[in-house]
Amino acid sequence: MDLRRNENDGNSEPTQFPAQISHLALDIGGSLIKVVYFSTSRDNCIDCEGESSANDTLRLFSGNCKHPVLQGRLHFAKFETSKIKDCLEFISSKELHLGGFQHHENPSKDRKFIKATGGGAYKFAELFKENLGIDLDKEDEMDCLVAGANFLLKAVHREAYTFMDGQKEFVQIDQSDLYPYLLVNIGSGVSMIKVDGDGKFERVSGTNVGGGTFWGLGRLLTKCKSFDELLELSHQGNNRAIDMLVGEIYGGMDYSKIGLSSTTIASSFGKAVSDNKELEDYKPEDVARSLLRMISNNIGQISYLNALRFGLKRIFFGGFFIRGQPYTMDTISVAVHFWSKGEAKAMFLRHEGFLGALGAYVSYAKHSNDNVVCNQSTQLPVSASYAADPNYNPLSGDFNDNESIQCSVYAA
Amino acid sequence: MDLRRNENDGNSEPTQFPAQISHLALDIGGSLIKVVYFSTSRDNCIDCEGESSANDTLRLFSGNCKHPVLQGRLHFAKFETSKIKDCLEFISSKELHLGGFQHHENPSKDRKFIKATGGGAYKFAELFKENLGIDLDKEDEMDCLVAGANFLLKAVHREAYTFMDGQKEFVQIDQSDLYPYLLVNIGSGVSMIKVDGDGKFERVSGTNVGGGTFWGLGRLLTKCKSFDELLELSHQGNNRAIDMLVGEIYGGMDYSKIGLSSTTIASSFGKAVSDNKELEDYKPEDVARSLLRMISNNIGQISYLNALRFGLKRIFFGGFFIRGQPYTMDTISVAVHFWSKGEAKAMFLRHEGFLGALGAYVSYAKHSNDNVVCNQSTQLPVSASYAADPNYNPLSGDFNDNESIQCSVYAA
Repeated sequence: MDLRRNENDGNSEPTQFPAQISHLALDIGGSLIKVVYFSTSRDNCIDCEGESSANDTLRLFSGNCKHPVLQGRLHFAKFETSKIKDCLEFISSKELHLGGFQHHENPSKDRKFIKATGGGAYKFAELFKENLGIDLDKEDEMDCLVAGANFLLKAVHREAYTFMDGQKEFVQIDQSDLYPYLLVNIGSGVSMIKVDGDGKFERVSGTNVGGGTFWGLGRLLTKCKSFDELLELSHQGNNRAIDMLVGEIYGGMDYSKIGLSSTTIASSFGKAVSDNKELEDYKPEDVARSLLRMISNNIGQISYLNALRFGLKRIFFGGFFIRGQPYTMDTISVAVHFWSKGEAKAMFLRHEGFLGALGAYVSYAKHSNDNVVCNQSTQLPVSASYAADPNYNPLSGDFNDNESIQCSVYAA
Repeated sequence: MDLRRNENDGNSEPTQFPAQISHLALDIGGSLIKVVYFSTSRDNCIDCEGESSANDTLRLFSGNCKHPVLQGRLHFAKFETSKIKDCLEFISSKELHLGGFQHHENPSKDRKFIKATGGGAYKFAELFKENLGIDLDKEDEMDCLVAGANFLLKAVHREAYTFMDGQKEFVQIDQSDLYPYLLVNIGSGVSMIKVDGDGKFERVSGTNVGGGTFWGLGRLLTKCKSFDELLELSHQGNNRAIDMLVGEIYGGMDYSKIGLSSTTIASSFGKAVSDNKELEDYKPEDVARSLLRMISNNIGQISYLNALRFGLKRIFFGGFFIRGQPYTMDTISVAVHFWSKGEAKAMFLRHEGFLGALGAYVSYAKHSNDNVVCNQSTQLPVSASYAADPNYNPLSGDFNDNESIQCSVYAA
């Protein structure tokens, strides 16, 4: 997990790489499968079709790395866990599974391992064996989330940003002052992890009201067919149509004595209590908006309370729930700001959805002495600088949108 | 608010009481109107029909009180805020509004005041004036919640109890060791108040995911026509039909490394993500159960985190959301126990739904020098002992159920 391990390891020798390397790491969650894979150089790049289309390019330059490294690209893709067959076909069609490694402890030409994390690494292990002939080498989910977040925060310039009142602001992370921080990963459920260093962390809390709740409840309430459709719908809605506001209880007045303005939500979905309306009488977009606000606000509040416990000023939010959605981030930011009275700060990550998969990917580094073809992962520079594609301005555009992201890993 | 004020006040003189006194206090919330009123003696008792049927008798005996006091009964009733006309008719038919008091500062025979709290005391002030000719004397909502809770915890034996694994256990509250505690009032929204003494408190937190959310979302999802129907429905359901459990992500396994068993809910409503089912394909009772669990658990968790902030070991839960429902209380208790590793304790109150209304009622004591007919409220004994009706066993029966509660106030 510690990317710097090989910088201090004089035994690491350059490895002969095959012409094309296609290492693969998986994070198989309750709702989504996140895929990270590497291919050598732009020229040799595996063609990204279907789920994996490019709308971002991330280039990493190694700093003082003395090892010869590969120039290539990290690709990201995602699939719904319920459509795992699509994922298997994707891997098969791109022959990503052929780059598996052999375990040092149990070398066997017949057994190739792929790094995987998330509950599905256990649940679907047999399915991968049967369909692709590969074993999943299971990495702990929390280990991977933390390793992925640490990698991004250290190696990728302009990875973290704040979001308030529609304004995105990149945050310069001083690596010597990175720890401790609270990592909040919003998947189907939510994990809250206090991170104290590389591999040093504790899962301190979590909540079962997460992305799965948004999408599950939203599906039942709106008949949307996809998470993205539900999110899109929520953009057009107004939560006031269905939330009970303080002003509605107080006859239009604030409850200023305790700092609640008339527009504060007193009770999510509370207006449905007294309206003589059925579900069909509400606009689906209003329902979606209210739901998104309820869950984002709740996560923001519980996160802040946990940050407070441990005196953590920085909270990084990751996971596929966020997807760079302005309203989601704004709600979370406002919740953290409101409850902490401005003391704590919500921050977001450009590659938010792939923390676990990235963590599984960089865990190949643990096997660097196995002399297997995954050694390039050990070369991922930890003090890399970021250079945007000349044609791409990271401050604009939906770089965190629904599409997967392409990354290029260059090293001097 | 301080019920003991008159015990230390040598100027308080016995007052001539009319034959029948029917003081009234209201807590007008976003979803429910809670009504507390007093009538003299069992013989003179205002006949309780309709909403106000007796299923509990609470007798208070004054300890060393030297003032002549009235023997009578405290009655409790509730109405949906959306059906406020029913409430007005109820008050009118029982002539409860005739016992209003005149303000010392602004005495006028034409203006009678009734104590009221909650947002509706502002919102519906004109309606009460127009329909009943009374002014609402507004008391702060948090003041009233705290005053009501302190009154119950001090004056009523067997008021507080714990609930775990279906077992109810009354808690003996040592009055000298009552403070500080966390009061969590679950109405439409939720208020969390750190209570340090009589009138000494701070609203430290809250959440907009409360009773209004349960009832509002539940109404949309199940088509239930009342809160009680929804609660009843939830008894019959199984949340596992729709919640995503840890074991379902982990292929039946625990995620024991971080202390999550396979039956822990990873994501409320998360199973609806992958099932190819519409809302109609789920049993309404399962949906209701999942919703109740989600909200109860969330409130338990946020409460615990706030108790932790201030080192509070006792959390009292009040508000009409709970209604003595075993599953609700069990979920809240388990959440507090789980997150606090057994350090903090969830406690419930028998008269949970009437904290605000009781607080408004006892606030009449502030006007005891006005020589108005409400003086009996100052005689409510603070060190009363509790004697159950011979025919009533407080350990069995649904004393906190949907019906309102009758209380008798006797004083030596």
